[in-house]
Amino acid sequence: MSGIKVAVIGGGSSYTPELIDGFIKRAAELPAAEICLVDIPAGEEKLRIVSQLARRMVAAAGLNIRVTATLDRRQALQGAGFVVTQLRVGGLAARAQDERFPLKYGVLGQETTGPGGLAKALRTIPVMLDICRDISELCPEAWLINFTNPAGLITETVLEYTRVKCIGLCNVPIHLKMTIAKLLDADAGDIFIDFAGLNHLVWGRKVWCKGQDVTDAVLAKLQDGAALSMKNVPDLKWDKDFLNSLGMVPCPYHRYYYMTDTILAEELAAAAPDGAGTRAEIVQEVEKRLFDRYQEPELTHKPAELEKRGGAYYSDAAVSLISAIYNDKREIHTVNTVNNGTIAGLPADCVIEANCVVGRTGARPLTIGELPPEIAGLIQHVKAYERLAIEAGVSGSRHKALQALANHPLVPSAGVAKLLLDELLTINAEYLPQFAL
Amino acid sequence: MSGIKVAVIGGGSSYTPELIDGFIKRAAELPAAEICLVDIPAGEEKLRIVSQLARRMVAAAGLNIRVTATLDRRQALQGAGFVVTQLRVGGLAARAQDERFPLKYGVLGQETTGPGGLAKALRTIPVMLDICRDISELCPEAWLINFTNPAGLITETVLEYTRVKCIGLCNVPIHLKMTIAKLLDADAGDIFIDFAGLNHLVWGRKVWCKGQDVTDAVLAKLQDGAALSMKNVPDLKWDKDFLNSLGMVPCPYHRYYYMTDTILAEELAAAAPDGAGTRAEIVQEVEKRLFDRYQEPELTHKPAELEKRGGAYYSDAAVSLISAIYNDKREIHTVNTVNNGTIAGLPADCVIEANCVVGRTGARPLTIGELPPEIAGLIQHVKAYERLAIEAGVSGSRHKALQALANHPLVPSAGVAKLLLDELLTINAEYLPQFAL
Amino acid sequence: MSGIKVAVIGGGSSYTPELIDGFIKRAAELPAAEICLVDIPAGEEKLRIVSQLARRMVAAAGLNIRVTATLDRRQALQGAGFVVTQLRVGGLAARAQDERFPLKYGVLGQETTGPGGLAKALRTIPVMLDICRDISELCPEAWLINFTNPAGLITETVLEYTRVKCIGLCNVPIHLKMTIAKLLDADAGDIFIDFAGLNHLVWGRKVWCKGQDVTDAVLAKLQDGAALSMKNVPDLKWDKDFLNSLGMVPCPYHRYYYMTDTILAEELAAAAPDGAGTRAEIVQEVEKRLFDRYQEPELTHKPAELEKRGGAYYSDAAVSLISAIYNDKREIHTVNTVNNGTIAGLPADCVIEANCVVGRTGARPLTIGELPPEIAGLIQHVKAYERLAIEAGVSGSRHKALQALANHPLVPSAGVAKLLLDELLTINAEYLPQFAL
Amino acid sequence: MSGIKVAVIGGGSSYTPELIDGFIKRAAELPAAEICLVDIPAGEEKLRIVSQLARRMVAAAGLNIRVTATLDRRQALQGAGFVVTQLRVGGLAARAQDERFPLKYGVLGQETTGPGGLAKALRTIPVMLDICRDISELCPEAWLINFTNPAGLITETVLEYTRVKCIGLCNVPIHLKMTIAKLLDADAGDIFIDFAGLNHLVWGRKVWCKGQDVTDAVLAKLQDGAALSMKNVPDLKWDKDFLNSLGMVPCPYHRYYYMTDTILAEELAAAAPDGAGTRAEIVQEVEKRLFDRYQEPELTHKPAELEKRGGAYYSDAAVSLISAIYNDKREIHTVNTVNNGTIAGLPADCVIEANCVVGRTGARPLTIGELPPEIAGLIQHVKAYERLAIEAGVSGSRHKALQALANHPLVPSAGVAKLLLDELLTINAEYLPQFAL
Ligand SMILES: NC(=O)c1ccc[n+]([C@@H]2O[C@H](COP(=O)([O-])OP(=O)(O)OC[C@H]3O[C@@H](n4cnc5c(N)ncnc54)[C@H](O)[C@@H]3O)[C@@H](O)[C@H]2O)c1
Ligand SMILES: NC(=O)c1ccc[n+]([C@@H]2O[C@H](COP(=O)([O-])OP(=O)(O)OC[C@H]3O[C@@H](n4cnc5c(N)ncnc54)[C@H](O)[C@@H]3O)[C@@H](O)[C@H]2O)c1
Ligand SMILES: NC(=O)c1ccc[n+]([C@@H]2O[C@H](COP(=O)([O-])OP(=O)(O)OC[C@H]3O[C@@H](n4cnc5c(N)ncnc54)[C@H](O)[C@@H]3O)[C@@H](O)[C@H]2O)c1
Ligand SMILES: NC(=O)c1ccc[n+]([C@@H]2O[C@H](COP(=O)([O-])OP(=O)(O)OC[C@H]3O[C@@H](n4cnc5c(N)ncnc54)[C@H](O)[C@@H]3O)[C@@H](O)[C@H]2O)c1
Repeated sequence: MSGIKVAVIGGGSSYTPELIDGFIKRAAELPAAEICLVDIPAGEEKLRIVSQLARRMVAAAGLNIRVTATLDRRQALQGAGFVVTQLRVGGLAARAQDERFPLKYGVLGQETTGPGGLAKALRTIPVMLDICRDISELCPEAWLINFTNPAGLITETVLEYTRVKCIGLCNVPIHLKMTIAKLLDADAGDIFIDFAGLNHLVWGRKVWCKGQDVTDAVLAKLQDGAALSMKNVPDLKWDKDFLNSLGMVPCPYHRYYYMTDTILAEELAAAAPDGAGTRAEIVQEVEKRLFDRYQEPELTHKPAELEKRGGAYYSDAAVSLISAIYNDKREIHTVNTVNNGTIAGLPADCVIEANCVVGRTGARPLTIGELPPEIAGLIQHVKAYERLAIEAGVSGSRHKALQALANHPLVPSAGVAKLLLDELLTINAEYLPQFAL
Repeated sequence: MSGIKVAVIGGGSSYTPELIDGFIKRAAELPAAEICLVDIPAGEEKLRIVSQLARRMVAAAGLNIRVTATLDRRQALQGAGFVVTQLRVGGLAARAQDERFPLKYGVLGQETTGPGGLAKALRTIPVMLDICRDISELCPEAWLINFTNPAGLITETVLEYTRVKCIGLCNVPIHLKMTIAKLLDADAGDIFIDFAGLNHLVWGRKVWCKGQDVTDAVLAKLQDGAALSMKNVPDLKWDKDFLNSLGMVPCPYHRYYYMTDTILAEELAAAAPDGAGTRAEIVQEVEKRLFDRYQEPELTHKPAELEKRGGAYYSDAAVSLISAIYNDKREIHTVNTVNNGTIAGLPADCVIEANCVVGRTGARPLTIGELPPEIAGLIQHVKAYERLAIEAGVSGSRHKALQALANHPLVPSAGVAKLLLDELLTINAEYLPQFAL
Repeated sequence: MSGIKVAVIGGGSSYTPELIDGFIKRAAELPAAEICLVDIPAGEEKLRIVSQLARRMVAAAGLNIRVTATLDRRQALQGAGFVVTQLRVGGLAARAQDERFPLKYGVLGQETTGPGGLAKALRTIPVMLDICRDISELCPEAWLINFTNPAGLITETVLEYTRVKCIGLCNVPIHLKMTIAKLLDADAGDIFIDFAGLNHLVWGRKVWCKGQDVTDAVLAKLQDGAALSMKNVPDLKWDKDFLNSLGMVPCPYHRYYYMTDTILAEELAAAAPDGAGTRAEIVQEVEKRLFDRYQEPELTHKPAELEKRGGAYYSDAAVSLISAIYNDKREIHTVNTVNNGTIAGLPADCVIEANCVVGRTGARPLTIGELPPEIAGLIQHVKAYERLAIEAGVSGSRHKALQALANHPLVPSAGVAKLLLDELLTINAEYLPQFAL
Repeated sequence: MSGIKVAVIGGGSSYTPELIDGFIKRAAELPAAEICLVDIPAGEEKLRIVSQLARRMVAAAGLNIRVTATLDRRQALQGAGFVVTQLRVGGLAARAQDERFPLKYGVLGQETTGPGGLAKALRTIPVMLDICRDISELCPEAWLINFTNPAGLITETVLEYTRVKCIGLCNVPIHLKMTIAKLLDADAGDIFIDFAGLNHLVWGRKVWCKGQDVTDAVLAKLQDGAALSMKNVPDLKWDKDFLNSLGMVPCPYHRYYYMTDTILAEELAAAAPDGAGTRAEIVQEVEKRLFDRYQEPELTHKPAELEKRGGAYYSDAAVSLISAIYNDKREIHTVNTVNNGTIAGLPADCVIEANCVVGRTGARPLTIGELPPEIAGLIQHVKAYERLAIEAGVSGSRHKALQALANHPLVPSAGVAKLLLDELLTINAEYLPQFAL
């Protein structure tokens, strides 16, 4: 058997066909011998459905990739060259909770930032550290591609507390690039965006098309109504004056910071008894239909419905990243990696999201330097939150968790932070062993 | 005539007797030949009252300090060795406006931070730059002691855009020290507080009494109900868990960040038709009574009522600072000066509030290094706001002003920022020549 | 006429056929309409010979590139898209002087570093600033590719004192890469060297072959006798223990720092009446023969003898760099550009030599971070020398020049520095207008 | 028994009477209950003589300080509040060796820098780490005042590899200050020198007298022939042009860097068979006479001859430092402590020599910021050497030691570094257990 083994943790995810699709498309350059999908008992049914679809996809493509499925993580990791983490501790039920509980206190509910994001981080950290212990033992040379949100924070945890080689991946940057290419009616390959920031808090400081600065044109398009949104984020219009004063391209998730009040109002309406439900609740419906579709035996490719799920370009982002590493391509990907002086005013050992040259030795960011105050302060504030969240997640310190919340720009006061924390710890208790003592 | 000339800009301020009192107390070490109070026509009446009281105070002390009063700033600056700026552009009426207009948009109104603070900064910057032009011409070697709020931001403006030698002064640090000394029943001279941060956003990272770390004892006292407040700030209790998790001593003004919701509620109640009025409105009453008192011919010392006004220890802070410079004392004062690497993660050329060794060559901060994330992020965020506010104040750029507001942690969204800015610029138009074009 | 205009300043250089060869090889991707060679009257004869050869080369290649020759620099710059500077103020006669005068004081003579390098820098700076004034006026959007030594220092001067877009180019990194590829019997495209440092003071911190760390293998080869040298640098063997303790790959020019004594002895012998002469003196001979060869009418390609001259891979380095910019390739080149935080412990605004992603917007270095002390100190020391040299070259300050020399690691004392400076300024007086006042 | 216990390691040093004198002078403010002198068997005789003199001195002063003497270090440390290290591993014999062996290779021999300084560092590090292990166990709250040279490097070792609270002390800064006060006919208390650098590599960037900048006046005096030297350093005149171009006040030890050639010549002459001998050899004579003097029973105070020894103001520097700590004076001392961002361009965790506010919580440097290139490069280069030396001294790595030497500005080549290292390790073998393996 030649070719690499890829272990996919959270293999039962509805995104897996995306990933499989990516491996199929890149089979020529990236010889995968085995893709091992691993999940937990609660995901067994999804794992079964997804792995069968995956096998049909591979077969239809006439490829010789073994798709295996297991509940035994250690077996999955044995001999892996790449590990992809796309798990969700607590599943969509926990996400729905993350989206709802802050609303009670007048704070928006979101799965990757704010109190909801902290809950997800605290649930995920112990699991990720466990996985890393296994990797260190079973496949210490493997690259961990972390897709699990909050992706930057989780990647920082891995890089700070373990020796696992890890790159954090998010589809926001590639999504922005693709959207902007469409807006400009340009080829994506001709677009270069000077990304700088953190995961889900990344700005395009400049946009270049064939080396021409087209930032203003992009901002003008955005003001003209182009949404620049993503499936997981409410599609609110950007204010013209605000965009002009910013002079940079925000990412879809910036709405949570710049349109906090409007989003909160929308969320409250959606969460009301007569509302449409939170995003997680909607996704649960989408998923149900998606898995029904996945089970159709004649389905042998990734179905169009998957796009509604929110992981657009995940396949491109993830598999081209793996290929860049495997083939030592030294090409530019926008990923999460250690700052190391790239952005001035952030700790050297924190994780940022930036344009990186990726090759077999990992991701090396392109120097950025001082950020303008328009974005520097918010990034630094959120990074401080992230560092407190990581400390809390690793140590189980209630103090650090409280400070994390009190330092989050979306939390209006220390008093509210305390209420949020109490509820967070209570309703997530089963997933927070580190706080149990 | 031997001894120095001190020019006091905003000489009609009710704080002036404090200052005079300080010069009287330190007459032995600090030979003031002339204290020249200067004001604008609108302040002429106050200037008259205050200067007469000042002369009575000096006479009663048996000292030979000439107290002069003038509306001609250039004359006041001629030959000055020290210039004290304690002016308020727009007076208390403008302050009352600053405290009220944000409330309409659900944002708290405060004279030194938030939208109100931005309004004050934008009004003050052109006046300060004007004053500095005069100083550069008429007394280029003079030290400018800036008391005018927002004191850090204004000091940064002066140091970045002029060549005037300037130290920013606030009575918060000395007030904290005095309060803590009382709490601990200790001598103020035995207390050393490891201050770090920005003006009105300064923390005591550690408190030492005779070299013993008493931080926890101070925090415990604060939790037991000790208020650690100031006249200008609502006297809200600190939460025990929060203080313990912080592990550092907050300054009174931190309430605006950590108790935003409670303060907003209080302010809304006070500003309601049947409410007590905003702080400025109350102060206007206090002032009226104070100036009545100042006019009593038999009054020859600073009256006790002055303390209610909010400038406790101003005399000590300001005059002992001037004496430290004049006598090259190289003793430690907590003032606002250029960062220059003192605090990691902040620009080298920004202004911080920190313990500094002060002598004839100015203020040199004691190294601080990396701040813990509990306070780093908020400081960096507010500093980004301040830099945008300064750019806006100097250039009259609406874009920078909008970004300043949108970046302020107390402003909930870019949309609200825009509304706030529109109103701010409209109601302050007469004081904002830089935005007129 | 479509395609770009390239102005080559110092067009009479014997390296020009290299450059022409590069444009011919890359004609498909890089459409040059005109290559304009410009020189000064002293170089007129060389310019004539070289331009005629260039025309024959282009014709033989069946290409439609206009090769023009002129003594009017402004005409050459008019409309240029790229400007290449490969001039030598004072010619080889001055270089010979640079190599000789330090020897009198027991200091080695070298054209790019030490007292000789300072002399070259001081002669070159006023000419480069002049050229940049012209560029700013006549072709402000043009990219300046600076090949003129000391290439890093000159590039820093341009970037600090002008607004010209400039990248500094040296053939040392590409030479190292090619040599190492040969040593390892590998394809150059599979080799990646983690370069860090300054021009002529650059280390390969790690060498990767197809993503495998082969640093030790390369070091072992070097110890086994592989020279890793260049035509302009004495071919001295590296000491085994020293290389092992360094753990990084030095560049050929490091011999001047690590083998100072041996090189000085060699130079003294060569410079003796019965010696072989200095490198410049030898090169003068080589050049004579080369220009004879260039004149042969049947010569229609770059002759093999050119390689002895010392500019190996110049063609590849320079033209592929221009193509990367022109075609917005965003591929990695090792060039001289602004540090901007790439290397910790060096000023943000200084110029370093590092791996950069190059595209139409210029060169962006890959983050490096803290350097190990094995190389950090020497780099920082030489950078301090460079900054003093630049200040001296721009301002004509004798003080700065003396400090530059006294700070140079190759100069043994301030006393010797003073003697060196006196002689340097005297014998170069005609080229140092800035020191004339 | 009230009052502190001070343990003096290397108690048999001829400097001890200085120290005792300091405690006597400051007895009112600094209540020493016991001064315990500890030495090794080789120093027993000196220890006896010195301790008896010390007792006579204390008695003559009518004080109640117990002076004890022991060879049992652990007993000495038990209960100590302060530990002073003034030991010399290998004694003056080793120092003489340090001064001689580099001369063979044309490198100057000096006890604190260059190859000799490295030898001293490597001998001292294991002993200091041992002492720190004892301190951590027996008196973990004690302050270690390290006087042992190379004082900066040793202090950095302690602070990086142990948890002992340590301040490094050198008499160079106080000596400079006193000398300059004399030069200016001023009171030492009126002089403030803006010190920045490393131990034995510290510059006075500016000198202020009563707050007036008198730097130029001081430089002029130095040029007029004022020596600004110390007993341990050859008294060579400073060159006028060089000083003017430097614009800062060098310390006596800078001669080794700026006058390397002259000093080498002097040293070679002194070390020749008919020469005066090296400084250590001369000191041995001085010491002999000094100890004879110390034994005179009627001697009850520190004798004048001690000054010739080289430790001028040691008493003032050391005991006033201890008093500043003990009495929490928060006054300014120039000492060696952690950089922590004080000087830009040096690692945060390295040790620098700078003006510090000293109190019970230790030494906090006054911010310095960017250094000018005139001094930045040399400081950074020597710091790189120091870091390599520390790594070598702690780990016993021959590689690190070779790199340390090859990186030292006084060592002319890697080849010479290798020869020096071989000899250094051989002749010091008995003191280098860490290299024994
Ligand atoms: N970085 C990005 O751009 C991006 C975009 C979309 C989704 N995501 C993230 O990807 C992850 C997966 O999203 P999803 O919607 O597919 O989630 P999901 O709820 O479908 O979960 C995926 C799988 O993880 C499994 N799982 C849960 N706990 C596990 C554990 N301890 N070990 C192994 N498997 C476990 C579940 O059983 C499930 O099958 C989430 O963390 C999500 O936030 C990231
Ligand atoms: N830094 C601190 O710790 C601290 C504490 C309290 C008050 N303050 C500040 O001190 C300042 C004075 O406060 P106050 O309550 O006395 O204010 P105030 O309203 O009484 O104003 C003081 C004087 O300034 C005068 N003035 C207004 N515009 C002027 C101008 N252009 N030139 C000269 N004078 C002018 C007014 O006429 C008035 O007499 C304010 O800026 C306030 O924020 C600072
Ligand atoms: N960066 C590198 O890797 C590298 C390698 C080799 C050479 N170089 C540099 O390239 C340059 C050229 O080297 P060379 O050996 O061809 O030199 P050269 O002596 O042949 O000079 C080249 C041409 O420059 C001309 N010239 C002199 N002063 C001029 C001026 N003021 N304006 C325009 N032209 C002028 C001369 O007349 C000559 O024809 C040198 O500076 C050399 O150090 C750089
Ligand atoms: N920092 C400064 O400004 C400065 C100035 C002068 C001297 N010094 C340093 O002070 C130290 C003492 O100098 P000195 O001339 O008195 O030296 P010295 O040779 O007289 O030695 C002092 C004592 O240390 C003892 N000693 C040796 N090894 C010891 C060990 N392992 N444990 C305990 N004691 C030991 C010796 O027996 C001797 O009695 C030296 O390191 C010297 O470099 C520092």
